[in-house]
Amino acid sequence: MVYKREELSDEKEKEVLSKLQDILGKKNVSIKEIDKLSYSKDYWPIALRWTLEGKVAALPDFVVWPESTEQVSQILVLANAEEIPVVPFGEGSGVLGGAVPVKGGIVVDMKKMGTISEINKENLTVTVQPGINGMNLERALNSKGYTMGHIPQSLYCSTLGGWLACRAAGQFSTKYGKIDDMVISLEAVLPQGEIIKSKTVPKSSTGPRIDKLLLGAEGTLGIITECTLKIWPYPEERALHSYAFSKLPHGLEAIRHILKKGVYPAVVRLYDTVETSRHFYETKKAKGKCMLILVMEGDKEVVRLEEKVAETVCTENGISCGEGPVTHWVATRFNVKETSEFTPKDVIFDTIEVSVMWDNALELYDSMIAAMSSVKGVIMASAHASHFYPQGVCFYFTFGGIPIEVTPNDFYTAVWDAAMKSCITAGGSISHHHGIGIMRSEWLHKELGESFEVLKKIKKVLDPNNIMNPGKMGL
Amino acid sequence: MVYKREELSDEKEKEVLSKLQDILGKKNVSIKEIDKLSYSKDYWPIALRWTLEGKVAALPDFVVWPESTEQVSQILVLANAEEIPVVPFGEGSGVLGGAVPVKGGIVVDMKKMGTISEINKENLTVTVQPGINGMNLERALNSKGYTMGHIPQSLYCSTLGGWLACRAAGQFSTKYGKIDDMVISLEAVLPQGEIIKSKTVPKSSTGPRIDKLLLGAEGTLGIITECTLKIWPYPEERALHSYAFSKLPHGLEAIRHILKKGVYPAVVRLYDTVETSRHFYETKKAKGKCMLILVMEGDKEVVRLEEKVAETVCTENGISCGEGPVTHWVATRFNVKETSEFTPKDVIFDTIEVSVMWDNALELYDSMIAAMSSVKGVIMASAHASHFYPQGVCFYFTFGGIPIEVTPNDFYTAVWDAAMKSCITAGGSISHHHGIGIMRSEWLHKELGESFEVLKKIKKVLDPNNIMNPGKMGL
Repeated sequence: MVYKREELSDEKEKEVLSKLQDILGKKNVSIKEIDKLSYSKDYWPIALRWTLEGKVAALPDFVVWPESTEQVSQILVLANAEEIPVVPFGEGSGVLGGAVPVKGGIVVDMKKMGTISEINKENLTVTVQPGINGMNLERALNSKGYTMGHIPQSLYCSTLGGWLACRAAGQFSTKYGKIDDMVISLEAVLPQGEIIKSKTVPKSSTGPRIDKLLLGAEGTLGIITECTLKIWPYPEERALHSYAFSKLPHGLEAIRHILKKGVYPAVVRLYDTVETSRHFYETKKAKGKCMLILVMEGDKEVVRLEEKVAETVCTENGISCGEGPVTHWVATRFNVKETSEFTPKDVIFDTIEVSVMWDNALELYDSMIAAMSSVKGVIMASAHASHFYPQGVCFYFTFGGIPIEVTPNDFYTAVWDAAMKSCITAGGSISHHHGIGIMRSEWLHKELGESFEVLKKIKKVLDPNNIMNPGKMGL
Repeated sequence: MVYKREELSDEKEKEVLSKLQDILGKKNVSIKEIDKLSYSKDYWPIALRWTLEGKVAALPDFVVWPESTEQVSQILVLANAEEIPVVPFGEGSGVLGGAVPVKGGIVVDMKKMGTISEINKENLTVTVQPGINGMNLERALNSKGYTMGHIPQSLYCSTLGGWLACRAAGQFSTKYGKIDDMVISLEAVLPQGEIIKSKTVPKSSTGPRIDKLLLGAEGTLGIITECTLKIWPYPEERALHSYAFSKLPHGLEAIRHILKKGVYPAVVRLYDTVETSRHFYETKKAKGKCMLILVMEGDKEVVRLEEKVAETVCTENGISCGEGPVTHWVATRFNVKETSEFTPKDVIFDTIEVSVMWDNALELYDSMIAAMSSVKGVIMASAHASHFYPQGVCFYFTFGGIPIEVTPNDFYTAVWDAAMKSCITAGGSISHHHGIGIMRSEWLHKELGESFEVLKKIKKVLDPNNIMNPGKMGL
């Protein structure tokens, strides 16, 4: 086991098991080895590597499946009294180790709390429990004529709870925003079992937004048990366009100008030359260039206007490549196979997403590519920009390589360190939407500065026994 | 003095004065009676009434004008050590008593910290200290070709710091959002003198947004000392339109449908029949109807589309009234004279803004009008809706009346109580953008429920001696 820890005594295990069964019923509590193993890791590449090496990342003592907010509250009251760690779990698609039960304890699988209690057509909201699978949520909305507007690559293998926990972003974020922009109100259980529930109103001016502390807390401050989010009418029109630019800066400038006009295509993805040749080699016109993918969607007339603005701006320095490249992207956009494909071949492969203001964007791109490439054994480092704002952009880097004279883990860590260091130097944020988990935890205090000390104080007062997802985010 | 309190001993006053002078220099510290009196109240109508009755709301012990973040930090370190209250002060335009120094102490006037350090054209941001006057900020941006998009009625008599402290909204909010939507990053001094500074990035996924706890905290959690906010290109086009609807629900439905199409006019104001006849009596076509005012602004083509969509939707149940009513609104929109005009005439007059989801909007409007009207002595109660979201709306109520057999204050409180109670019953939020201050403090825990207990815990851990703006928001 990679994360060693003190085992519960047999007596204590028996006692807690019995209490958990009282709360949840026998069917919703497990201490079976096979269940514990199923929750030993998430989609963090380093944990997959451990699996291939025959190592187990970590094992919980109990796996539970609550069915109500009250049960979640009772679990936390018990865990707090017994000082047993609690790790909330959705579908384990996080890529930074955030759901690995590094100190054992109770894994709280939220999948039995996935009910949609209301789709409100007048308010354009959905009220839903966090254990719902992303695609199931989207399908339910689609069938009523709506969309979440939150379509991450992990749509099929992640839950709403995971999105909220790490302030996720979907592929359509340039129009619809990140998941935290969509939250209207939420219900959550805090570490000592207190249930908070914010009011469902469009906007208010009633003190600081306490409920929003749960967003991005990655399970360290409590468990979200219900959420009311914005939804949108299912788009009556969708338009696909692509343009190729000879240089990355030309593509970035084009996008910046489109947004500056108050026009927000839903999907905006600009690939550097390396990724363009990897993904769009069939598009001859784009050879050696940077591909820009656009999907406009929504009201017909709005889409028409967005197309017109994009065409004008993008053809100034770019050439139209038609629908083809977008269709290709649409067909492959939920593909998450790279990690499981490359890792067994002893190729180290991972992605790193960061954000930066426009005026530092190119410097950040150049310096992060250079920093990662400079690590011995790195074969490729590339990026696309895939979430855009009038103020800046998210770069999504991919690196791959083969460790030379170092262990795979040391190689992996060396590339990450180089990337994080150059990101911070260039004024970027160390994460745009994947979060912190284990992998980025040592960088969080550098990102937050004195605010990290405040976070620790708030954590301490809300979770005095540090039961909630301990060992994550440097907490 | 209305808010009685224990006076500082002469010795203590002398000691603290000397220390404040060491920090700030003699010119930036005052204990003159005239200065103390100037900071004895804000724009809360009840405090104006006290003034007319010859009463002073409250007096600070010291008035100080810091010129740097370090000075603010040193003031708070001193105040915390001496356990002396600190009340941050902008221009005192708050209407709920939030800036009244009810427990004396140090009023920290932020007006000497009003420097714009950067207008970043590439990032579309402004970095500015919070003491800046609203109109000065807007003018500085306009002169460079930009706008804040935040144009409150109080633009001429409020500061950025006040906006941030109470999560304010401007008249153009339907397009640009509330002030809290515009914040990219901020620097603040916490109650024990710690300086936090968040990173200037468009979006991130790096733990909960600790810095945003300062937004809406109304000075109870610290003092914001700098902020980077979104700005927008100064609109190349502006269009003014108005429509009259025979019934309020028709107007509300029209607006809901416009927003549902993904089209956001900047100014959207719908007046009930009472307010329509009060403000737009010159528009014969609107007699007995509800007036809708629209201002579209931004990119020319976007404005054209917004006009087209609005015209189609609004003429379904309404009639066009042209530019005239909008021009009238534009000419009078910064008028804040009502309170000072009516109060000396012994007419009690105030405004109450609340927010509500669409499906409760009409019920809330009806029940709040009925509740206020039912208080003996109320002559009029009316409303307009002036900030719109795809999810709901802000109603801005106005009431006026003459106390019968009760004191003015009791009458005033009775109307507020009736309004707040019916607002909560109808599912509304007790404040959309004015905040809590003193007047709403007893209602905040009803609004927030268990979250209020969490707020108290966070307050306690960050401000153990409760020095920051004590006696506000129920803290």
